[in-house]
Amino acid sequence: MYKSLLLGLASLALSCAGCSATQTVTSPDQDPLQYVDPFIGTGGHGHTFPGALVPFGMVQLSPDNPSQGWDWTSGYHYSDDTLIGFSHTHLSGTGVGDMLDVLFMPFRGDYLARERDEKGRIFTRYGHDRESASPGYYQLYLPQEQVNAELTATTRTGLHRYRYEGPQAARLLVDLGYAQNYDKAVVTFLRVEDNRTLSGYRLSTGWAKFQPVYFVARFDKPFTHQLYQEGKAVKGAKLQAEQGQIVLDFADATQIEARVGLSYVGIEGARANLMAEAQNLSFDEARELAAGAWRQQLNKFAVRDPDQRNKTKFYTALYHSFVAPQIFHDTDGGFFGADGSVHANPDYGRYSLFSLWDTFRALHPLLTLSDPQRVDDMVKSLLGFYDETSLLPTWDLMSNETDVMIGYHAVPVLVDAYLKGLTSADPEHLFAAVKASAMQDGFGLDLYRQYGYIPSELEVEAVSKTLEYAFDDWAIAQLASALDKPDEFAYFSRRAQSYRTLFDASTGFMRGRDKEGSWVSPFNPTYVEHRNTDYTEANAWQYSFFVPQDVQGLIGLFGSEQNFVAKLDELFTTSSEMQGDVSPDISGLIGQYAHGNEPVHHVAYLYAFTDDRHKMEQRIAEIRDSMYLAQPDGLAGNDDLGQMSAWYVFSALGFYPMNPVGGDYVLGIPQFEQAMLNLPAGKPFTVRRTGQGQVESVWLNGKRLNQPVIRHQQILDGGELHFQLAPLTN
Amino acid sequence: MYKSLLLGLASLALSCAGCSATQTVTSPDQDPLQYVDPFIGTGGHGHTFPGALVPFGMVQLSPDNPSQGWDWTSGYHYSDDTLIGFSHTHLSGTGVGDMLDVLFMPFRGDYLARERDEKGRIFTRYGHDRESASPGYYQLYLPQEQVNAELTATTRTGLHRYRYEGPQAARLLVDLGYAQNYDKAVVTFLRVEDNRTLSGYRLSTGWAKFQPVYFVARFDKPFTHQLYQEGKAVKGAKLQAEQGQIVLDFADATQIEARVGLSYVGIEGARANLMAEAQNLSFDEARELAAGAWRQQLNKFAVRDPDQRNKTKFYTALYHSFVAPQIFHDTDGGFFGADGSVHANPDYGRYSLFSLWDTFRALHPLLTLSDPQRVDDMVKSLLGFYDETSLLPTWDLMSNETDVMIGYHAVPVLVDAYLKGLTSADPEHLFAAVKASAMQDGFGLDLYRQYGYIPSELEVEAVSKTLEYAFDDWAIAQLASALDKPDEFAYFSRRAQSYRTLFDASTGFMRGRDKEGSWVSPFNPTYVEHRNTDYTEANAWQYSFFVPQDVQGLIGLFGSEQNFVAKLDELFTTSSEMQGDVSPDISGLIGQYAHGNEPVHHVAYLYAFTDDRHKMEQRIAEIRDSMYLAQPDGLAGNDDLGQMSAWYVFSALGFYPMNPVGGDYVLGIPQFEQAMLNLPAGKPFTVRRTGQGQVESVWLNGKRLNQPVIRHQQILDGGELHFQLAPLTN
Repeated sequence: MYKSLLLGLASLALSCAGCSATQTVTSPDQDPLQYVDPFIGTGGHGHTFPGALVPFGMVQLSPDNPSQGWDWTSGYHYSDDTLIGFSHTHLSGTGVGDMLDVLFMPFRGDYLARERDEKGRIFTRYGHDRESASPGYYQLYLPQEQVNAELTATTRTGLHRYRYEGPQAARLLVDLGYAQNYDKAVVTFLRVEDNRTLSGYRLSTGWAKFQPVYFVARFDKPFTHQLYQEGKAVKGAKLQAEQGQIVLDFADATQIEARVGLSYVGIEGARANLMAEAQNLSFDEARELAAGAWRQQLNKFAVRDPDQRNKTKFYTALYHSFVAPQIFHDTDGGFFGADGSVHANPDYGRYSLFSLWDTFRALHPLLTLSDPQRVDDMVKSLLGFYDETSLLPTWDLMSNETDVMIGYHAVPVLVDAYLKGLTSADPEHLFAAVKASAMQDGFGLDLYRQYGYIPSELEVEAVSKTLEYAFDDWAIAQLASALDKPDEFAYFSRRAQSYRTLFDASTGFMRGRDKEGSWVSPFNPTYVEHRNTDYTEANAWQYSFFVPQDVQGLIGLFGSEQNFVAKLDELFTTSSEMQGDVSPDISGLIGQYAHGNEPVHHVAYLYAFTDDRHKMEQRIAEIRDSMYLAQPDGLAGNDDLGQMSAWYVFSALGFYPMNPVGGDYVLGIPQFEQAMLNLPAGKPFTVRRTGQGQVESVWLNGKRLNQPVIRHQQILDGGELHFQLAPLTN
Repeated sequence: MYKSLLLGLASLALSCAGCSATQTVTSPDQDPLQYVDPFIGTGGHGHTFPGALVPFGMVQLSPDNPSQGWDWTSGYHYSDDTLIGFSHTHLSGTGVGDMLDVLFMPFRGDYLARERDEKGRIFTRYGHDRESASPGYYQLYLPQEQVNAELTATTRTGLHRYRYEGPQAARLLVDLGYAQNYDKAVVTFLRVEDNRTLSGYRLSTGWAKFQPVYFVARFDKPFTHQLYQEGKAVKGAKLQAEQGQIVLDFADATQIEARVGLSYVGIEGARANLMAEAQNLSFDEARELAAGAWRQQLNKFAVRDPDQRNKTKFYTALYHSFVAPQIFHDTDGGFFGADGSVHANPDYGRYSLFSLWDTFRALHPLLTLSDPQRVDDMVKSLLGFYDETSLLPTWDLMSNETDVMIGYHAVPVLVDAYLKGLTSADPEHLFAAVKASAMQDGFGLDLYRQYGYIPSELEVEAVSKTLEYAFDDWAIAQLASALDKPDEFAYFSRRAQSYRTLFDASTGFMRGRDKEGSWVSPFNPTYVEHRNTDYTEANAWQYSFFVPQDVQGLIGLFGSEQNFVAKLDELFTTSSEMQGDVSPDISGLIGQYAHGNEPVHHVAYLYAFTDDRHKMEQRIAEIRDSMYLAQPDGLAGNDDLGQMSAWYVFSALGFYPMNPVGGDYVLGIPQFEQAMLNLPAGKPFTVRRTGQGQVESVWLNGKRLNQPVIRHQQILDGGELHFQLAPLTN
């Protein structure tokens, strides 16, 4: 497939005129927004949503389909044609669904007489022909309701515009009890403050166990109302119920606009957020502001490609990289902490939604380039979580520890930020936090410390945990070194070598051992069983290369570079057949390589450290081309809050944080003849590709690079990274 | 029974030497604490608890039995002998249970090997022979554990002292999942901060739908620990789970003390409360402070009686009158509001736990005498609830509206406070709040406004609601008058006469009507059916006299005072037999009079407005004597957060707020030959009784009273109220 890719690229020979890295005005055809397709990933297993948000925004206002299973975790799946409403919070690309707070559903007719789905909710049909989306904006026409719905957002508010056609009264259902997946409402509260203002809260429990959400909604037209408690009409202007709903009747209004402030702190917080961000904002103004925020965010990267699909893939991947972590604090700084308590402004911006097992790999390194000013807040948010619970989060969802996935991967995020100089956090505080994770007893850590690996009969996912703990320990060692803690450096450096204990030279795999040290048998490197084997959402093939902290050590285990390369080749060329119970997480297969899940994301880049780097180039191009498509089912697996997308962003730019800690990016092969980085903390930096086929040499500011690596600081220092491929022949 | 009472009292002829109203030193035999028996009401249907608290305290640290039904709503019933632990929050005298947060259970042996009850909890047996309680203190010896447990409290902290005898390791279970009645844990959080400090939260939903409670516990000895999640042991030092438990192991410690700060705001709030109130407090010091707080509170009333049982009844009733409303704000003023949100210090002290249908009758009037400085905070707490939800509370439980019971009886509490000059709240704010209740559409209010009464076929409890709404409307009219709002005065005064619409002269009862105005038939004044007839927890007998706002008008409906008195006589002398389904709420029967529930509490005092006031005296004495006994099952019905007890307090003092708004107290007959009131805002006031038998005359400061009433201000002005009974004959 490599060859055809190059043929496809052969016609690219754009001049660089007009592509000055310092440009700030975007001409229409250079507007990155036109290249973002929010529907990418909403089909297949991508689990993204198409709705409206601003970068890292607290509000994700997006359409909801009644769930039909795992592929509906974002609330929406492209295969669906049934709308249940538009709720204000959505998860992008996760494997478990949650949120979907404060559902708005414009409709016509008698609410109680409407047909219901099996969960008792009204719905309406739609088609994609009258649906559209762009960054910060979503639109859907509802033919059965004769309503055109438009959504946009600020950081903490959602804005709705509903145009009602035809003669029937304009009605809107606000449903606080709506939930999908594992989530369910515990109690909801609705209050009609006046005939244009509604407020309330929704306390739900699900993947995140303690989830209060508050809102204040202002409408531009007066309404009359009817409250419903557990489905029954009740009189009055407020209610508290497990399932609270309200139908607003706008009579003969032909268009209504709503501005909805959200908060995780309280109703007055939601009101203050609404006042601060959207008090006098029209829908169109908000839409323009949201577009502007995205334009500014995406314009940090400018790529040239005659094939619009490549630009669509790139800018959509960028777009999906900037959905999370999300801003979790109110405009006054207050936030809902991991101790279940509201905290006043801590002098940092609190973020939540850290899917760290996924995002430590490429997303967080990407943010150190694109959003260094946010990194310090993210670091302090993680430290805040530690302060509130004694442990850094594993998977922080709305300030709840979900304990999904493995590892203590807040550590690499923190250490990378520190080593890149992006945080003002107290280094001793940082060190105490990362050390607490490594020294805890849970999750097999006590066994890991006792045996040097985790015995398989004593703890599930023993191999994956051992390998990932070893990497995190390496990160701690780097921090210890930077902080001049020689004892801790030595201790954690030793732990970082734990991966060696599980390498079975006889099979060439990382393999489980029992506490006596014997290899677990029988052993089948293609066997999978969801979260019930030695490997996490994977098999031995997919995990055996997870030693990003010590590639030379890993190569050494194989006896020779040749053996190592042969094994890598075999990963990609072995039949994709697997034994056991293959979960849908394991997708995006090239042989036993499964790009749809995260453990392999660094693997292609391992070739860079061998004499076979061209195999890397080939695999990267193949993955870019086959696992990322400019279509709704175009993501090969869960986007996982941007990690899948961040892989693409780096891999299209031509370098990747194979080891996500410390600022080394492995040189790959650029997708584009030219990409320009206008980074907030950097000077203009251009990646240029000339020639075709294999990379022959790479030059930084005219100087040939002898290592397959570019450093973070070198990117920030600006200039040009030039990939010289074989000369064009014609 | 009246006669025998008087014979019993005939030997009382105490001199007044040493009973100066200004005394502040309490000699041992005058210490009111010795006359408080916290076990009164813990048997029968009283629903009180025996544990430790300070007046109006946030913490009620008390023993818990596994619930065996309705009589266990306080967590404890005197008939039980099974202890499940000591939790920090309890309701006093309610008909629905809730709370029971943060359970501590000292035990011995292997936690997992212990026998479990049907809900999976460990338990231990005990006997009352090694149990004791006094205000602010509770003690229980657990023979199976060889542990002596002692409890005391400050306003926001609970203090435990466990003495472990014998050889086994000293262990303590802290169980956050424990719940009874309708309550259940949604999510709990436990964190071992260090080997002497534990913190966490418990979010539960039950009668109060949104109940977060936070705590920080400090121990005086180090512990090791084991966490349990949903019953399974888990490693680590923190967890979030639906059922979170931790076992603390104090090894060979023979005594441990724990100080536990509570908060409804957050963990840091709980910590701050602990620091502010108990940072360096020993158990004994805390116990002494708690006793001192009660002594100060109870010493506002000094009564003399040679029969210690009468003093026990009186001081225990006083004690039970000062349990609620409870202080709900943290030491920094922050509180959890009725909008489900944390609010910063609003410059008033927030109270919660308003069982207003019960307590507007006598408890709140009692507090205007005993605790005028708290009344303003209570008024502002009710107004805060209105600000947060658009409506004053009906039954505020932990800032949740439970919507139990009927009426808008925050209104009389607010209006009484205003008319007595006890609040600095903005009068217009007050008026808007009380008017909002009366003008709402829910609970039949729309029908009430439309028909002038509530048609029985359209709304349950139509008669009770109509009568109570009319009373509350009268209260609003009084506020309108005070604020010079003649239109509103006229409007609400008209509504206050609504009771007339339901008086059926043919039967002499308040009786339901349909919307055409016809009387509901068949009609049986003894028929009851729990919350499913025209009457609320009552029958027509028990509700037909509820016109405290217009006794002359009520008498007039009967055609003559003679008819009215005959009907009152009949109430007390008709057979107690009832038809239908008699709920246990309807208890404490004298004929059809049911003193165990609130609707009749003013009824005996209606005789005061007739020529037959001696019948009142007889009934009051009879009720005092038969419905209040100095024994665990000594309360004739639910204490209802002190209303039952407040009835006794007033009725023993010799006057009662028959109409609880405006400051008129109807003169009854004193229990004691002498009672002295040392009220915070009043001069010393003495009630003296001489003679025996019927009251012949009543004198205020030497001047004979011609009306059966004493005014609030007259009490505050001090002096002597002298009830002159028939001369002693011998």
